[in-house]
Amino acid sequence: MSAGQPLRLSPIMAGAWRMAEWQMPVAERLRWIEHHLALGVSSFDHADIYGHHSVQQLFGQALALSPGLRQRLQIVSKCGIRLVAPGQPGQAIKHYDSSAAHVRASVEASLTALGTDHLDLLLIHRPDALMDADELADVFADLQRQGKVLHFGASNFSPSQFALLHQRWPLAGHQIEFSPLHLAPLHDGVLDQCQALGLPAMAWSPLAGGRLFTRDDAAALRVRQALLALAAECQVSLTTAAIAWVLRHPSRPRPILGSRRSQVSAEAVAALGLRLDRQQWYRVWIAATGHELP
Amino acid sequence: MSAGQPLRLSPIMAGAWRMAEWQMPVAERLRWIEHHLALGVSSFDHADIYGHHSVQQLFGQALALSPGLRQRLQIVSKCGIRLVAPGQPGQAIKHYDSSAAHVRASVEASLTALGTDHLDLLLIHRPDALMDADELADVFADLQRQGKVLHFGASNFSPSQFALLHQRWPLAGHQIEFSPLHLAPLHDGVLDQCQALGLPAMAWSPLAGGRLFTRDDAAALRVRQALLALAAECQVSLTTAAIAWVLRHPSRPRPILGSRRSQVSAEAVAALGLRLDRQQWYRVWIAATGHELP
Amino acid sequence: MSAGQPLRLSPIMAGAWRMAEWQMPVAERLRWIEHHLALGVSSFDHADIYGHHSVQQLFGQALALSPGLRQRLQIVSKCGIRLVAPGQPGQAIKHYDSSAAHVRASVEASLTALGTDHLDLLLIHRPDALMDADELADVFADLQRQGKVLHFGASNFSPSQFALLHQRWPLAGHQIEFSPLHLAPLHDGVLDQCQALGLPAMAWSPLAGGRLFTRDDAAALRVRQALLALAAECQVSLTTAAIAWVLRHPSRPRPILGSRRSQVSAEAVAALGLRLDRQQWYRVWIAATGHELP
Repeated sequence: MSAGQPLRLSPIMAGAWRMAEWQMPVAERLRWIEHHLALGVSSFDHADIYGHHSVQQLFGQALALSPGLRQRLQIVSKCGIRLVAPGQPGQAIKHYDSSAAHVRASVEASLTALGTDHLDLLLIHRPDALMDADELADVFADLQRQGKVLHFGASNFSPSQFALLHQRWPLAGHQIEFSPLHLAPLHDGVLDQCQALGLPAMAWSPLAGGRLFTRDDAAALRVRQALLALAAECQVSLTTAAIAWVLRHPSRPRPILGSRRSQVSAEAVAALGLRLDRQQWYRVWIAATGHELP
Repeated sequence: MSAGQPLRLSPIMAGAWRMAEWQMPVAERLRWIEHHLALGVSSFDHADIYGHHSVQQLFGQALALSPGLRQRLQIVSKCGIRLVAPGQPGQAIKHYDSSAAHVRASVEASLTALGTDHLDLLLIHRPDALMDADELADVFADLQRQGKVLHFGASNFSPSQFALLHQRWPLAGHQIEFSPLHLAPLHDGVLDQCQALGLPAMAWSPLAGGRLFTRDDAAALRVRQALLALAAECQVSLTTAAIAWVLRHPSRPRPILGSRRSQVSAEAVAALGLRLDRQQWYRVWIAATGHELP
Repeated sequence: MSAGQPLRLSPIMAGAWRMAEWQMPVAERLRWIEHHLALGVSSFDHADIYGHHSVQQLFGQALALSPGLRQRLQIVSKCGIRLVAPGQPGQAIKHYDSSAAHVRASVEASLTALGTDHLDLLLIHRPDALMDADELADVFADLQRQGKVLHFGASNFSPSQFALLHQRWPLAGHQIEFSPLHLAPLHDGVLDQCQALGLPAMAWSPLAGGRLFTRDDAAALRVRQALLALAAECQVSLTTAAIAWVLRHPSRPRPILGSRRSQVSAEAVAALGLRLDRQQWYRVWIAATGHELP
């Protein structure tokens, strides 16, 4: 794998952000990775800060058990949020930092924790109001030249922030919140931009962080009912129906599933074989917005 | 007329969307068309769904009475909304559909109903969240090559949706809601984009669907009073004053008048000779927003 | 100085908008200018309408006392707002006017009042909904050819309005409201655009028109407390801390200070030597928004 090659991401991605909470022994972590690979889920989503800066190391320990594993998967990581956390001296408040020094330090720490020599994709985690696009482009160039990061992207940016950074450095993807309970990217220009630039969106919380299954607010109830009807109609699970809804956008967003149970990812993978028709898709949209189309 | 020629639209357009309600015998429909042509209103606005899919046929029946008529007028039509309607089996909910298959089928049905071999301009009626710009550009290319549609555009799109489709296919116009009671396109970037691209806007409901004349909400009362003062000052009708206000934007929006009485169109045409000065125009803006300029 | 040269603006600017209220004798006005020049504040911000159209003349009278002065400073002025004011016959309501005729007349009046043969930078004061970008570009070209205005820009435009005009004429800057109590340009695309185009922003009311010091609304209280803590930490004044906050944005906005006391400008100039770190900057952002970062 090298920087000259286009970014490869599996159509369904696995999110490691809760791995620390799962309290898995290292062998179980390895099984979690292997189960995903067996499902065709080869892209793993990280960030320097997940699990109070512990997740990448937990993942790296599992990787270390199986030498050939690294080259069978892609690692996406993020930087740019600074937490108040042990091991982060000098941080008094949570803030954003897209400075060259922090990006460089974060990448080094990620590579060490993961036990790898490169990240496949590094995302700026949140839009830093102080982002200096030239400074970032320079550090991206360095990191790519050194082979430490193959591709760069952003996360949770507005279209104008994304366009600014993309003008200085060719970004390879945009990770955004998108689910039947979070429709904003359909209407705020973010998914239009992904389609216009021919770039993959990655969808975090595609199941709305579980709210689809458990919450009782009016929108969640309406959407759950619509998805359950769809699931019954298509003879699939609620998870499969929800992921099929996310996948239906023409920019083909890659849903990131973050469950300890690889069964959830299996249900997401099943959605790759289910193409909703427009009426099915719009029934969920109408349930989510609470109104008919104009 | 051919695809190689620039789109020609009359500065005032006639909207047929209520033609089914008018219950006119075919000879009267023909007179309605001819009255408009005599006024210089040569562009007629349609959509596949108007009058529950009946208007294009009513219009086509009138055209058929007068063989040379078609080449003296331009037909704008739209597709992309699917209604729950008799003759539309399989539609359970109103939804949007900008798929190649639906666009193609809709154009064929429009040509048959209108009894013509081409549309001058086809608009995607509403922004379909599932719009695949490449798929649409491909079907536009086919339809243009076949001579069935000379030009393409959009309706009710956001600037980023319009830019996405325009990137793949050179759009020829944008039909939007714009009136003294609907100022949004002045401030949300839509009219900036029309001016930047040098493309005509077409204004639907330029009289706010009659609300200008009849409603008693606070904004309607304020705007009516401002327009009546303007009308008195310029010695024109309220309709002429309102249309002059719409026409004053530098992108020269084409108002679409949808009245059975061609007198309304005549009053709109009269507005072409009336150029409001900036104070006159801003008095109406201030009445509409309810506040002074900052 | 000529149009071929890039625009030169001092990093801190002086605003003359309240000069009429100051009731200064002409010799004192001259001292005010000279004090600023001594501080390195060489760019003076005007508009045709400031002080009910009186400020430029007050400034010009001071300039006239010291023949070599003009070439040591830059004059920024604005046009495009028409007030109801004595000496402005025919104006019945405040409105915007970006017509060629008004821009030309305003520039002539500004040159006469200021007693100079050129403006360094002319800004369109407010976004005129009736702005014709071609018409403006033509009058800009004329005024530049005649040597009457060296550079052109805009003020208070949305990104799409700015992009439209910039498409027709290369704008040299954008003057906007920006302060710890007015964060909008950080998030609405305006400062992204300045950075993307490599153009200077100029920040009006960088001290929120004094609200930072005197008001008791919740946001003002929170921001004042955050800035006072910052000021104590850095051993600078509240003004210096606030201006350092404005200057910290990577597009390097130029704050415009509009006080009769050149001491205020001196405190602003002191901020040029103070680079806030990200935590310091974000503490103020959090105080201003009233919430933590997501």
